[in-house]
Amino acid sequence: MQLGLSFSDSDVSSFTPLVVLELADDTKAEAITWLLNRIRDKQQNGGAELLVNQLLFPAQDDQKSNPNVFVVGSTLQRLLNGAEDVGLFKEFQDGTMRGFTYANRESFKDFNGDGEGFLSDAECQYIIKHGLDTLRAKNEQHVPGYPKLKLYPGKSVVRRLQSKGVLIQYFPLHNKEDLKRLSFSWYKKFKLSFQPLDDIRHYFGEGLALYFGFLEYFTFALVPMALIGIPYYLFDWEDYDKYVLFAVFNLVWSTVFLEVWKRCSATLAYGWGTLSRKKAFEEPRAGFHGALGFNPVTGREEPVYPSSKRQLRIYLVSVPFVLLCLYLSFYVMMVYFDMEFWAINTYHENPNIATSILLFVPSIIYAVVIEIMNLLYRCAAEFLTDWENHRLESSFQNHLVLKVLVFNFVNCFASLFYIAFVMQNMVLLRQSLATLLITSQILNQVMEAFLPYWLQRRRNKKVHKRMRRLMGDKELPLLGQVQLETEMNTYLGTFDDYLEQFLLFGYVSLFSCVYPLAAVLVVLNNITEVYSDAFKMCHVFKRPFSEPAANIGVWQLAFETMSIIAVVTNCALIGLSPQVKAYFPESDTQLILIVVAIEHVLLAFKFILAFVIPDVPKHIQVKLAKLDFDSLEALKKRVSTHLHIKKTNKKYFFVNF
Amino acid sequence: MQLGLSFSDSDVSSFTPLVVLELADDTKAEAITWLLNRIRDKQQNGGAELLVNQLLFPAQDDQKSNPNVFVVGSTLQRLLNGAEDVGLFKEFQDGTMRGFTYANRESFKDFNGDGEGFLSDAECQYIIKHGLDTLRAKNEQHVPGYPKLKLYPGKSVVRRLQSKGVLIQYFPLHNKEDLKRLSFSWYKKFKLSFQPLDDIRHYFGEGLALYFGFLEYFTFALVPMALIGIPYYLFDWEDYDKYVLFAVFNLVWSTVFLEVWKRCSATLAYGWGTLSRKKAFEEPRAGFHGALGFNPVTGREEPVYPSSKRQLRIYLVSVPFVLLCLYLSFYVMMVYFDMEFWAINTYHENPNIATSILLFVPSIIYAVVIEIMNLLYRCAAEFLTDWENHRLESSFQNHLVLKVLVFNFVNCFASLFYIAFVMQNMVLLRQSLATLLITSQILNQVMEAFLPYWLQRRRNKKVHKRMRRLMGDKELPLLGQVQLETEMNTYLGTFDDYLEQFLLFGYVSLFSCVYPLAAVLVVLNNITEVYSDAFKMCHVFKRPFSEPAANIGVWQLAFETMSIIAVVTNCALIGLSPQVKAYFPESDTQLILIVVAIEHVLLAFKFILAFVIPDVPKHIQVKLAKLDFDSLEALKKRVSTHLHIKKTNKKYFFVNF
Repeated sequence: MQLGLSFSDSDVSSFTPLVVLELADDTKAEAITWLLNRIRDKQQNGGAELLVNQLLFPAQDDQKSNPNVFVVGSTLQRLLNGAEDVGLFKEFQDGTMRGFTYANRESFKDFNGDGEGFLSDAECQYIIKHGLDTLRAKNEQHVPGYPKLKLYPGKSVVRRLQSKGVLIQYFPLHNKEDLKRLSFSWYKKFKLSFQPLDDIRHYFGEGLALYFGFLEYFTFALVPMALIGIPYYLFDWEDYDKYVLFAVFNLVWSTVFLEVWKRCSATLAYGWGTLSRKKAFEEPRAGFHGALGFNPVTGREEPVYPSSKRQLRIYLVSVPFVLLCLYLSFYVMMVYFDMEFWAINTYHENPNIATSILLFVPSIIYAVVIEIMNLLYRCAAEFLTDWENHRLESSFQNHLVLKVLVFNFVNCFASLFYIAFVMQNMVLLRQSLATLLITSQILNQVMEAFLPYWLQRRRNKKVHKRMRRLMGDKELPLLGQVQLETEMNTYLGTFDDYLEQFLLFGYVSLFSCVYPLAAVLVVLNNITEVYSDAFKMCHVFKRPFSEPAANIGVWQLAFETMSIIAVVTNCALIGLSPQVKAYFPESDTQLILIVVAIEHVLLAFKFILAFVIPDVPKHIQVKLAKLDFDSLEALKKRVSTHLHIKKTNKKYFFVNF
Repeated sequence: MQLGLSFSDSDVSSFTPLVVLELADDTKAEAITWLLNRIRDKQQNGGAELLVNQLLFPAQDDQKSNPNVFVVGSTLQRLLNGAEDVGLFKEFQDGTMRGFTYANRESFKDFNGDGEGFLSDAECQYIIKHGLDTLRAKNEQHVPGYPKLKLYPGKSVVRRLQSKGVLIQYFPLHNKEDLKRLSFSWYKKFKLSFQPLDDIRHYFGEGLALYFGFLEYFTFALVPMALIGIPYYLFDWEDYDKYVLFAVFNLVWSTVFLEVWKRCSATLAYGWGTLSRKKAFEEPRAGFHGALGFNPVTGREEPVYPSSKRQLRIYLVSVPFVLLCLYLSFYVMMVYFDMEFWAINTYHENPNIATSILLFVPSIIYAVVIEIMNLLYRCAAEFLTDWENHRLESSFQNHLVLKVLVFNFVNCFASLFYIAFVMQNMVLLRQSLATLLITSQILNQVMEAFLPYWLQRRRNKKVHKRMRRLMGDKELPLLGQVQLETEMNTYLGTFDDYLEQFLLFGYVSLFSCVYPLAAVLVVLNNITEVYSDAFKMCHVFKRPFSEPAANIGVWQLAFETMSIIAVVTNCALIGLSPQVKAYFPESDTQLILIVVAIEHVLLAFKFILAFVIPDVPKHIQVKLAKLDFDSLEALKKRVSTHLHIKKTNKKYFFVNF
């Protein structure tokens, strides 16, 4: 099947392919023709005005590869207009970041000549994605050739095709040159240095760059704690009551850590132009369904799903399910403690090497079981959140994050809380913490990077072999690359990476005073994490679309909640320490009252600190204010211009505001 | 002295006087000529384009009245343009609130004919105030005739004249007709009804209307508590341990109260067009001084004061001073307790009517002393905050509010906390609370309304007498009105009114479980407060300039902090109740742990509740989203228009963005 212009390596020069679009291999020809025409059509006519061509495999292909693979590119002019359309912020001549406009293009700092190289690949791909996503149905009743694929005016064509499986996927292509440079400066040179965050942002977008920025910041922030932790660990191993100082340090650290991060994140986001960028109007997510109605905001026809129904699903199904899972998690925990006691008894009855190894077995089993439960629950949570039928991707994500976070928190920390505050057994706490930390780290690294890498290598070899069989020794870089990347796994976003950091933060901020080595372990983990994450982004997964982000979003809240819990936990641990108890030999009451009082003061202090430290550094605030001021002044000038020309130009000005 | 056009009652028809401008009576003629010319000058030439005339007194005046009184008005055209300039939001044809633009004037709901009556008096006066405030020096080196009154380009002329005492005051005139109507519907008809908030806003602006809205809302919210409180008071007077239920009720009430208010406030502010209105760029306050430098935001020349110096003043002088005052307040409290014990001892030694009256004397003295200390401290705080030399009025206000709040809180509540938690004497707590509440209420009403009213009446009589002596029986409404209002007291903003409500909220939410009648007393107080406040706004004070406000600002935070303290206090009171203590006969420890646990759960619940309840009601959210969406769409349309005309019109578009 061959539609429109064919496209293979021979005419690669016609445009730079940036995005790959894969349709199901049994897609009807008329649907393809229609889609390609709509993509190529002028924007005035409601098209996306993009360049698109089919990727043709040589005739001798053994028919196993999907013929309906298309590459999408764009003219420079369309990209620059698109940059204005999506509201990209770029550096202005005066060093501030301003919304790019085509009319003022010459006033932007890196704009030379016709603007070649002004936009990064990631930005171009984002603009193309935006163009495809906002390609809307006009008067078509359904997708040509598919009477069941209903359309209505304004419906995003790509979302509809995606939700019905006609569009299998669309993803941005890697740029081999840039990738090579990036991976060299990122993880291939073996010297201690900061990550090339700007380059990462350039290649993968702001969302991912912020994750790596946070990972780096978190790791550096842990270094002082690790440095203090090592002597503590070495010289006070059996002297449990020296941890008061460490707990106090924890308290201050966890508060300051997050406040300073907000400022760093604001600085990064400002430099990347996402801090003051306005959020675009959000489309309903692909999976959202409902009776056709009218959106009260846009006035467009679109599916409407009563929020009362959603609330019912949430409160009558999801919440009970989550509670049930939490109960299950508690049950498993109690089983673990039974096993633990049995192991200890066995050891005491017959102490030898076998039984002393047995001592660690319950913890290891428990750590593995926790990981499995987290994984299973994750699938269930995704299914449930999907079933709740959220209209927006962001609301879907928030509900998913909340569900997963609560369960993961309980699952990972319940046993530690139980040991610390019910059993009050600090030796066991220390031992469990160490086992949990080490086991889950090893599991994570294997599951996250090495397993996918191994699978990917097997797949690569197969593709290379087939390619060689097909073409002999002819060089077919584009064809081969597309073939390879189509089969790569899709990176599902930073969720799992942040979740892992969240749990590590929990281990460190909650309990590191009883196990000072925790910080050291987390630092070691994060150093390998940087490399394995960098590696998996560059070589294991498809390149993800760049995601504009001004901060780490809901995770900031999650980390802050954890740091509040840390204050309470650390105060309680201080209260339990023999050292402190020694000061109040007679009455527990007084001790508890004092600990509670201190805890309240610390919490109050924490809130005041969060309130007093500005979230955005002063020099960025000044720049933002300057931007606001300039736009106000421009508005004023425009208003006074109006007064003189308004009579002649009324209709135009109506659009203007 | 007579400058420019003269203006007396005979030619009142030339324009409606809206604002009065009073210069010092020894102002030099050239300064006056210059100022009037600048005010009258076209906006293109940097003037304010307003109408201004001197108010001339009849020749037979005995020279006692200041001749330099001017009235300012404006043409309708200037006002409508000004409405666009200050960013006024008005109701659009489709029922949403949109930023008013002169070009689209016909599309706004209440715009008829030439727009007469479209803007309220308060809005017109606000626009005139904005015009006067933003009248900037051009190339003048100093005010003509005053070589010491230095000017630099961009300096607000009015602020400079005001800071040096040349401009004594400027204030909006009352509108007798509207005032009569308003005061009738507000407080003169004796039937139970809601306040006419829209009319109040129409006449006094959003800031004040929000205060009265809050006052009303608070009062209504207290009614259920008062209704529960009366039977509690009547039947359980000596049964102290029944207050657990009441404390729980308090907890829930104080949280829900503030969350619901946010939604009410958002609804009000949306209807008044202040919710989505952008804050204008703030001028330095009149009292701000410093070496001349450049503002990093505007690039204009203006005084610059290093923030490090300000920080030093705050931390080395203000903070120690506040701490000293707090110590003093504690000291006074301890003296009060000594007096209290002495009085009780005297009564027990010789119980008769005289000594039983003596029992109440210390509390009354203490209440009076507290009021006096609050007053003195207020003056000191204002002086200090002024001395800290804040650049912006808002930052000045925040520092002042913080200083005053902390002191007032300690001053009013320290003794109650001491009695409740150190002495654990609930009978005394109840008695002190009653005395404090009643005394401070009586004092407040007298100081706030009746004393100023009495002074004002004396002044009125004097003015009337003089006027009659001057003119005989001739009617001179404008002259008389200006004369009268010039001498009225200036309303200093809603600070004191909110502060009073804040303290009342504290009494109720913290301790009403031990003295259920508190809510009843506060309700009674607030009902009279509505009347006395309404009366003082209409008849005691000068009309204040309308202050656009979207919410109650820093007070929301203050009330929320109080409600958090209320959770802690109520939990502690529950823990102290004999009823609860009876459940844990053996161990205090367990009781305390359980109370602390419950407190933490309640605090967590409170934060979750605050997070889950949206601050803006759904239907307002939809309207706001619609507005955002429409402006995005308009922007898109404009962008596509650009692409066709950008070549010819480049310079214009540069201004456009």
